[in-house]
Amino acid sequence: MKIVLAPDSFKESLTAAQVCQAMAQGIRQVSQQVEIKSIPMADGGDGTMDALVAATAGQVISVPVTDPLGNTVAANFGMLPDQQTAVIEMAQASGLDYVAFDQRTPESILRATTYGTGELIEAALDHGAKKLIIGLGGSATNDGGAGLAQALGVIFFDEQGQALKNKLGGGDLAAIASLSIKKLDPRLAKTEILLASDVTSPLVGPTGASFMFGRQKGADKITQQVLDDNLRHYAKVIETALGKQVSSLPGSGAAGGLGAGLLAFTQAELVPGFTVIAEEVHLAEYIKQADLVLTGEGGTDGQTKFGKTPFGVAQLAKKANVPVISLAGNLGAGYQDLYSAGFTAFFSILPGPRSLTQALQAASDNVAQTTANIMRLWLAK
Amino acid sequence: MKIVLAPDSFKESLTAAQVCQAMAQGIRQVSQQVEIKSIPMADGGDGTMDALVAATAGQVISVPVTDPLGNTVAANFGMLPDQQTAVIEMAQASGLDYVAFDQRTPESILRATTYGTGELIEAALDHGAKKLIIGLGGSATNDGGAGLAQALGVIFFDEQGQALKNKLGGGDLAAIASLSIKKLDPRLAKTEILLASDVTSPLVGPTGASFMFGRQKGADKITQQVLDDNLRHYAKVIETALGKQVSSLPGSGAAGGLGAGLLAFTQAELVPGFTVIAEEVHLAEYIKQADLVLTGEGGTDGQTKFGKTPFGVAQLAKKANVPVISLAGNLGAGYQDLYSAGFTAFFSILPGPRSLTQALQAASDNVAQTTANIMRLWLAK
Repeated sequence: MKIVLAPDSFKESLTAAQVCQAMAQGIRQVSQQVEIKSIPMADGGDGTMDALVAATAGQVISVPVTDPLGNTVAANFGMLPDQQTAVIEMAQASGLDYVAFDQRTPESILRATTYGTGELIEAALDHGAKKLIIGLGGSATNDGGAGLAQALGVIFFDEQGQALKNKLGGGDLAAIASLSIKKLDPRLAKTEILLASDVTSPLVGPTGASFMFGRQKGADKITQQVLDDNLRHYAKVIETALGKQVSSLPGSGAAGGLGAGLLAFTQAELVPGFTVIAEEVHLAEYIKQADLVLTGEGGTDGQTKFGKTPFGVAQLAKKANVPVISLAGNLGAGYQDLYSAGFTAFFSILPGPRSLTQALQAASDNVAQTTANIMRLWLAK
Repeated sequence: MKIVLAPDSFKESLTAAQVCQAMAQGIRQVSQQVEIKSIPMADGGDGTMDALVAATAGQVISVPVTDPLGNTVAANFGMLPDQQTAVIEMAQASGLDYVAFDQRTPESILRATTYGTGELIEAALDHGAKKLIIGLGGSATNDGGAGLAQALGVIFFDEQGQALKNKLGGGDLAAIASLSIKKLDPRLAKTEILLASDVTSPLVGPTGASFMFGRQKGADKITQQVLDDNLRHYAKVIETALGKQVSSLPGSGAAGGLGAGLLAFTQAELVPGFTVIAEEVHLAEYIKQADLVLTGEGGTDGQTKFGKTPFGVAQLAKKANVPVISLAGNLGAGYQDLYSAGFTAFFSILPGPRSLTQALQAASDNVAQTTANIMRLWLAK
């Protein structure tokens, strides 16, 4: 009997690899005969690098980069065993975690730059990467990827034709009058870039980067309007210089407009996060050979169908006609609608009435126990 | 496919019959093909009458009786369809629920009488009962069953040889000098009486009625000693009159010593609560024909093995080699030790971090959803 474990992380408590460990422990409590294949998963958000590195036995490389507010920090990227594929999470360099909660102000979001993500890409190219998988979740920025573009060699000029020397944030974009890609890193033209994201927002407008995601990064209403105007202006400069219209492309609004910058200045292609990761780790092939698949995530509800890991796993399992059980720290409204997507059954890991804090602390043990009970039920028939 | 549903009640939220309904609803969400047999269960405690009446399609009869403090109240007993077997819960007449929390004082426990339980037995005999199943849980009393004995016709005399006319409580037992069973209801001699209880405490001593259970009924330390002394004296009077030594019999301390009174004055036999009920509803026969058994209770933990319903169900299922799944509102410490008793698997019904109040309110829906997921998993293999 073969079981594939393909969970996402349980947010705030367990990485996907830890969930796999706990599930495996639960199975081993019940049977030593079962063949277990652990494939920690992610959907392009937090944990994408860890999942891909763990699943492929790749390596993590740490390099100094510029954080959103201009400090130098150490950021990781993953290099897969082919030594050609690098996994980059923009949040490693330009994530909201670098801005303390009480520092998330209009000033900080106007200043925040994706320069560090550009540096991380450069580092990956320096290490020989020919293919980049870039996770776009968790940004602190709203700069349209202008900072990143600078790090990759794009030069932005003001109205006087002077190169803008500071690392650009979303508040600086109005000062851009033109740009040059002459110094753009030539390796990018030969690099396959997959943007792993489920955010299909356009760059600007009411569903764009500034208005959809600006508030949580510190913007007030006035600042959101300023940022949106700036991104609109920035997109026009890009259109004039490169003939590319990026402001309404799906995904151009992801990660504070980093999507737009990557789509404008590189060969980047927006791909569903789960799909690209699943392909990279050959998830479908493993599922085809399995008798049972276990997946899971911190919280499952009606939103899960928008590209979350368990949904993707369930669809692959359905195609292969393999039962798939999904575990969750919380089963929320609308989870029952997901059966038709291929889910066999859902189980919460909670053993009884518990606070969120208690639940998070006991998550590993609870995953193991619930998995053990599922296995017992499964093997009893 | 046949499924037997044999849960206990979920305390403070669902009766056993309601748990059956919720489980059946969960099964029906998944399959219309499954043959469902609902057998609401109990272990001699709260819900015993309801479970037996529901399982056998018996009837509930209401009669006026004396409550522990002397008020007249309506109490129910169950008459099973054979019109010969009555189910009596002592708490219906003499239960702690009749004494408000702030009234549980030394005065109230000294006064509290089981007279009403005797009346309830008389009423059952009047309705033609030849067999009584008596649940002993939840008593407010500590009278050694002296009040009950009076209602059944026993006369207690003081040192002057005067019959004690008041309905006796535990505080009155010191006044008893002798007794007569001449007027004892003669029908009792031909009546089979099963005391459904898992309390095997003796009447007196540190593990007896007064010291083990007196505190929660209102006794302070001094009162506990008075009550224990009184029961010891009462047992001596019984021994002198009837030649029966009841004070150290297992179960004589159940229900404030009601066990002792019933063992002394009737043909009563102490039987494990679950066993007698299981036999009455032919649970073993149904389980033998089942493909799967679902049971459950409000809280499952290491204590469950002391005769609680799911434990009994699991043992019958193990004997019949049928898988048994147990649901619980809470899985507590030590539940994993129960697998060896025959349990296939345990599932909590909690969908995520919830308060006890939230959990109790959503119990029915949570039982249904969890059952549906179990069925989906079961049918997928």
